[in-house]
Amino acid sequence: MTLSEIQKKLIRRKLDALIITRNNMFLGQDVLPEENLLRQLSGFTGSAGNLIVFRDKAVLLVDGRYELQAAQETDPTRISVVCTTDSLGTWMQKNLADPCVIGYDAWCHSISETDYWNRTLKRHTFIDCGDNFLPPRLSAHPADIFEHDIKFCGVSMDEKISYLTDFMNQNGLDAYFICECDAVSWLMNLRSSCLPDTPLLRAFALVDRSGEVSLFTTDMKRIENELAAYKGKEIGLSFNQTPKQLQNIMKNLKIWLVNLADPIQKWKAVKNPVELDGIRRAHHRDGIAVVRFLHWLDHHRAGLSELDVVSQLRRFRAKGENFFSDSFGTIAGSGPNGAIVHYQPNENTNRMLDNDSVLLLDSGAQYYDGTTDITRTIALGNPPQEIKDSFTQVLKAHIAAATAIFPADTSGCAIDAIARSVLWRYGKDYKHGTGHGVGCFLNVHEGPQGLSPRNSYSPLQPGMICSVEPGYYHPGSYGIRIENLAVITEVKAPEFPQPMLSFETLTLAPIDKRLINKYLLTWEELDWVNQYHRRVEAELGKELDADVLKWLKQACAPL
Amino acid sequence: MTLSEIQKKLIRRKLDALIITRNNMFLGQDVLPEENLLRQLSGFTGSAGNLIVFRDKAVLLVDGRYELQAAQETDPTRISVVCTTDSLGTWMQKNLADPCVIGYDAWCHSISETDYWNRTLKRHTFIDCGDNFLPPRLSAHPADIFEHDIKFCGVSMDEKISYLTDFMNQNGLDAYFICECDAVSWLMNLRSSCLPDTPLLRAFALVDRSGEVSLFTTDMKRIENELAAYKGKEIGLSFNQTPKQLQNIMKNLKIWLVNLADPIQKWKAVKNPVELDGIRRAHHRDGIAVVRFLHWLDHHRAGLSELDVVSQLRRFRAKGENFFSDSFGTIAGSGPNGAIVHYQPNENTNRMLDNDSVLLLDSGAQYYDGTTDITRTIALGNPPQEIKDSFTQVLKAHIAAATAIFPADTSGCAIDAIARSVLWRYGKDYKHGTGHGVGCFLNVHEGPQGLSPRNSYSPLQPGMICSVEPGYYHPGSYGIRIENLAVITEVKAPEFPQPMLSFETLTLAPIDKRLINKYLLTWEELDWVNQYHRRVEAELGKELDADVLKWLKQACAPL
Repeated sequence: MTLSEIQKKLIRRKLDALIITRNNMFLGQDVLPEENLLRQLSGFTGSAGNLIVFRDKAVLLVDGRYELQAAQETDPTRISVVCTTDSLGTWMQKNLADPCVIGYDAWCHSISETDYWNRTLKRHTFIDCGDNFLPPRLSAHPADIFEHDIKFCGVSMDEKISYLTDFMNQNGLDAYFICECDAVSWLMNLRSSCLPDTPLLRAFALVDRSGEVSLFTTDMKRIENELAAYKGKEIGLSFNQTPKQLQNIMKNLKIWLVNLADPIQKWKAVKNPVELDGIRRAHHRDGIAVVRFLHWLDHHRAGLSELDVVSQLRRFRAKGENFFSDSFGTIAGSGPNGAIVHYQPNENTNRMLDNDSVLLLDSGAQYYDGTTDITRTIALGNPPQEIKDSFTQVLKAHIAAATAIFPADTSGCAIDAIARSVLWRYGKDYKHGTGHGVGCFLNVHEGPQGLSPRNSYSPLQPGMICSVEPGYYHPGSYGIRIENLAVITEVKAPEFPQPMLSFETLTLAPIDKRLINKYLLTWEELDWVNQYHRRVEAELGKELDADVLKWLKQACAPL
Repeated sequence: MTLSEIQKKLIRRKLDALIITRNNMFLGQDVLPEENLLRQLSGFTGSAGNLIVFRDKAVLLVDGRYELQAAQETDPTRISVVCTTDSLGTWMQKNLADPCVIGYDAWCHSISETDYWNRTLKRHTFIDCGDNFLPPRLSAHPADIFEHDIKFCGVSMDEKISYLTDFMNQNGLDAYFICECDAVSWLMNLRSSCLPDTPLLRAFALVDRSGEVSLFTTDMKRIENELAAYKGKEIGLSFNQTPKQLQNIMKNLKIWLVNLADPIQKWKAVKNPVELDGIRRAHHRDGIAVVRFLHWLDHHRAGLSELDVVSQLRRFRAKGENFFSDSFGTIAGSGPNGAIVHYQPNENTNRMLDNDSVLLLDSGAQYYDGTTDITRTIALGNPPQEIKDSFTQVLKAHIAAATAIFPADTSGCAIDAIARSVLWRYGKDYKHGTGHGVGCFLNVHEGPQGLSPRNSYSPLQPGMICSVEPGYYHPGSYGIRIENLAVITEVKAPEFPQPMLSFETLTLAPIDKRLINKYLLTWEELDWVNQYHRRVEAELGKELDADVLKWLKQACAPL
């Protein structure tokens, strides 16, 4: 389908606009290329956004991460790119003056979101066009569903389901309907190999209070048949996470809907001891691969392109035990491409590695025992002092978060401020969160916790995993980000009136000392870098060949 | 009225519970003693809280500031005190299992709050009992309404009203109904002397699109008469700030209600140049009074009680030009009383000043040209090292916020984290926000901005005034708080890619050096203290008598 075809259809169907969201029908972002209608229509390859197609124009709403990229990937004569922190609903409220009839796909927007539109945008009319307007939403039948071994996931499906049946009993529910794929995958200890960078099983699940589970993958008609048995009964679900279409179906069936936040998200976020062991092992293995890659890069830099970097890094990782896939499309931005926060090189944008600049390399892997995500910014030749100073400032911000001590249930936005405020002192900032939750052989971005200015209702708890990744981006010139994953652990000290929490770093790979201006560091920061490097060398050194070990010792030598 | 009488009425009227809120009918906290039903029933003297009276018990919900005080002031055999960060609605959701019929006063709860109850507490029934159950809400007729001189407020009423008529035109409104007393007072440049610690005029205002204003003080029947003219028309108001009862009235009159945040709050928060000049002068004058008081205290400490401190401080302030009143009941907590965050001494609790401890003194004044609010923690004798270390840690937190640099529109919760995280490193915390907005000859607590973990939607802007007041409280032993007011100003630096904001401290009074362990301070922190003291001495010194000046020079000598 093309933009023009949609625009012709708008006129025929008497619509003023149609919303094409990047979300899939699980309200997640995991789509195969052939399911990505937003990309087909606009060219935009990012993982989040909304395209509003009007009869004579189209507007693409993206967040700060995609400001530069969206502008580069779309045709400005046909699509206006708007970078905004407003939600789709708020943007429409501010920008659609005249009354409009607006089509949308009720499978791809939540009950809460569409309720918000109907409550606050009273002069507009919203019409579900999903079933007969848009192409099929799930093209692939989930291939190769497999079990996530108990030796990796640590807790059986039966035990997890018993948490949920307890929850249903407490809340007087007859069933609970789960719409988030990662919650379903975690609950059932099931994974799939249908998607390229995540073992996510794309499915809805209906669990009744006896613990019986019905799984729904592509056959959405079955949902209606199974739900018919619940007429007059109470089903719990989260209005924020459930497609509007499911509410329509349940209302028609006269089922009582009870809006309750999905409790699985919190259970999943706090990793159990078996998961934490595996995650530590996965990070060890990932560190070996990254160190081998960094050694290789330092010796083969001449004539390399960004795509060469991506494929070589994957080759090192794929040799590791329990490797399943990358955990997302590797971000490898040399020089100015690094300033595009979520840049992924392709044949059109591929750039030879610059000289006297930096390479921003953000990558990760899915291992059966854990998911990794690491960003290193690497010196290419001898970058100018400005880049080194910016790198050191970002490092200071990273250390501020990595060494933070905070009480249980602190909101992630506090940690975000602790890191970000270091860069503010230099007049700098970054248009993305300081960190996100990470799954265990699941989504590399998972909730409910997150370290972001907006995320104020996600109390941090021991056992949660977060990325710590402040950055700085100089458009047209370079980008810097330093990212480690960390697990939240309890800290006790005799002088503490109460136990506190802190981050224990999981990621193991040297931070490029060639980019550190050590005169900008405090004594404590310098010590943090040296101790981290000592640990990297101690934990990884034993398994490396002599030449790589020699390189690592140099990379980890004290500042 | 007594608790038992209410409980008898509950049975007669077939209610399970009645909510008695500390709010007045403007949803504010400014009440005369005889209007304070919550206090009459429970004994609790704090400025915020909700009492839920059941047939056989009563529960008092308070926030962290009042945890200790509420327990001390209430009878535990009749009232259970619950300290919670949950809203009243959320608490009821979690704690009222069986279906209840609950009475409330529709004048004293907002449209948003009651809508939330009705949406989320479906098993309960809420009934407005205000008009025939509760005593009159406003006892005093507003006495002595007076104009706030243009030389102090800087902008005429006509100009302010023109902002509002522009706003109505932009939003297609026929009128705007303002429910917040401080917004009404600011808009009309009117004040009143009816309340003890604030010149607030307690009134609603209805402004039509031509700029005509109707003011409603105690005669609520007039509201209905005047509103009758708006049948079928659109009136803007803020559902968060408007009593439910007004919605009922307008719905009966078939008026269209448009929920729009009150724009006056933002206009009022950003002080104009005339206001800022006055505020600086008021702080100068307040600093003189506080320094004279501190000098006096150091020479007359023997045999003094907390109440003596309160009255003497007021005496020094009252001598100052443009003095109107205190800006709130002075908090003077010696030793263990200091650990009660919002402690105000009375005849029952009054304590002689301790030896080898500290006095927490939080006070302020209303001057015609500005409102002040300052907390100093003062050494009494030679306090133990633990107190000095805690004081120094709180000072470090204060300096972290006072020297923060941040972009425009940063949320106050970021600044809160910057200060609070310093104390977290010592395992310490405080159960109140780091700061609040402050009015100009108006409320000493005003929105929309605030520096608190929860306040994430209040972008900070140049010209706003905030308190900076981290603390630490050791129950049963001592309390520490260091509070200055500051105005947000723009900072430009050649190396900054964008202009940033920072705080310019307004409050002028020495910080007690006898409590500083200078070995806990960084070089920059030490320098901040010395520079601040140099400024205090330079700005106040000229106007002091020789003996006070001598004392000040010593108090401000470099560390």
